[in-house]
Amino acid sequence: MKVTVIGGGSWATALVKVLSENHQTKIKWWMRSHDAVEHIRKHHHNPKYLSSIEFHPSRVKPYFNLKEAIKNTDWVILAVPAAFLAEAISSLKKEDLKGKYLVSAVKGMIPKTNELVSDFLLNQYDIPLSYQCAIAGPCHAEEVAAEKQSYLTIAAPDLELGQKFAKLLSCRYVNTSAITDLYGVEISAVMKNIVALACGITHGLGAGDNFQAVMVSNAMLEIKRFVHQQAPLERELISSAYLGDLLVTAYSQFSRNRTFGNMIGRGYSVKTAQMEMNMVAEGYYAVKSIYEINQKAKVELPIVDFAYAVLYKKNSLKKEFNSLKVKLS
Amino acid sequence: MKVTVIGGGSWATALVKVLSENHQTKIKWWMRSHDAVEHIRKHHHNPKYLSSIEFHPSRVKPYFNLKEAIKNTDWVILAVPAAFLAEAISSLKKEDLKGKYLVSAVKGMIPKTNELVSDFLLNQYDIPLSYQCAIAGPCHAEEVAAEKQSYLTIAAPDLELGQKFAKLLSCRYVNTSAITDLYGVEISAVMKNIVALACGITHGLGAGDNFQAVMVSNAMLEIKRFVHQQAPLERELISSAYLGDLLVTAYSQFSRNRTFGNMIGRGYSVKTAQMEMNMVAEGYYAVKSIYEINQKAKVELPIVDFAYAVLYKKNSLKKEFNSLKVKLS
Repeated sequence: MKVTVIGGGSWATALVKVLSENHQTKIKWWMRSHDAVEHIRKHHHNPKYLSSIEFHPSRVKPYFNLKEAIKNTDWVILAVPAAFLAEAISSLKKEDLKGKYLVSAVKGMIPKTNELVSDFLLNQYDIPLSYQCAIAGPCHAEEVAAEKQSYLTIAAPDLELGQKFAKLLSCRYVNTSAITDLYGVEISAVMKNIVALACGITHGLGAGDNFQAVMVSNAMLEIKRFVHQQAPLERELISSAYLGDLLVTAYSQFSRNRTFGNMIGRGYSVKTAQMEMNMVAEGYYAVKSIYEINQKAKVELPIVDFAYAVLYKKNSLKKEFNSLKVKLS
Repeated sequence: MKVTVIGGGSWATALVKVLSENHQTKIKWWMRSHDAVEHIRKHHHNPKYLSSIEFHPSRVKPYFNLKEAIKNTDWVILAVPAAFLAEAISSLKKEDLKGKYLVSAVKGMIPKTNELVSDFLLNQYDIPLSYQCAIAGPCHAEEVAAEKQSYLTIAAPDLELGQKFAKLLSCRYVNTSAITDLYGVEISAVMKNIVALACGITHGLGAGDNFQAVMVSNAMLEIKRFVHQQAPLERELISSAYLGDLLVTAYSQFSRNRTFGNMIGRGYSVKTAQMEMNMVAEGYYAVKSIYEINQKAKVELPIVDFAYAVLYKKNSLKKEFNSLKVKLS
């Protein structure tokens, strides 16, 4: 099997490690940084992310030419932040991706158009949903790098395709399974970043563990309502693809979204928090997208509304917190 | 309203504080320790638990005579560990409790008989379920003492009764609501202690945040299956009464069950862990009760089976962990 991974960050790096555990898989790995590509070619380590991982040069080949990287490949895995996805693959034409299977490891929406990644690939590149998968489930890249037991769920409208990719991604320390709910896992992955951010804000405001547990429960109710409105389908929301993914983000110290929110809750401005963190919290963009989509959908989303009011309307933190409190149960 | 609280531990102490926020409520507070009663009478603080809380002597009266404490009271709130409940109230006769409303703040089962508290009260004291409530939801006593915003759900087959007690328990920092699913919240409260304990064990064995999130998701599936088998009913398992309660226990550092499990996972014997902790982890007894009930019910409960095998069959930790891993998804 020939696989191309697009992205040079920690999640991309972890996925390349997992895929390369299967000795039959040949991996082309594209990233923007020429220096990183050179470094990996020479030293077989990503210089910037999870740099302890060693890549086998016969199985993993780094590229900085995107067209070269996707030539003759079967699977294209997208693992860049949603905000940069459109730009990252802007040099590609529809013909370049024709007939290939696209796998989204992106957990966010295209900011300008508020599209899910699957819809973006369909609208911009004519990739039918039956050629698409998304990787879901709780999966900190750092823990995969450390070979800690993890579980991933592949969502694909074509279940057989999902199962095929699940098999490619399965290894000693990663269990995989497949479901068909592509839209559902994409939307809930976007929302979980908002929830983690909102949990960070309330934590920064002094809320404790009791409140956090109530936030996450109410968030699940909110995700249930919104996902059902956007993509009606029978789904098991308490399985690890949905609930597990939310938990690992909302409760973990690795979470950028929670850290970013926490700084906002302690009184930092959005700009200062972003500068201090020196990275993007996906939830910041996700809040805007979901809020805007919901102007039409009109689903009851108190946690999204809270985060939007604090981050974009710059309303008083305390006032918004008090108004959120009475909406939860 | 006249309320009697039975129990001198931290949860009982926190409940007395919350109830006494309502100036119309008169509270009789029973505890076993004569010294503690004397201390509270003189100094208005519980000497052993949450001792920063000051109780108003005209609203809160401590007792060590149980019959005195429940005389002329409307509500009796049970807040002792399940393992000690039967003994704590063994001096009471059916007539003593007749006509009173019983509220369980106990999160466990009666060990010898594997009864839920509600069934124990029904079987031993003829208290009809329509006179019973249970307090559910994520609520660390320590955070209530610190007046951190919390949410409690009152489960009562008679919804009006539940609403009445919910009102009694509501105050500035505690929001309350009522549902009818008494059995459901009781069973899931018992199981969440097992889950927290099992999470502790796997953490002690080196599992990370990814695995923990998968454990908690699978635990929700397990709770769903078991609760449905035991008490079929439409219920919203992702609400704070069920999921929230599980989260606060499985993820919090305050959790005795998690700490106990963690010691087991790191190789301590059950005896040593109990001695080191100097307190009971309710989950230890809960595992046995649920496992035994399930010998008849035969629901798929991999996490309960794992905890039972490790704690009671003394099977190899590593072998049981490996066998659990393949049962999760």
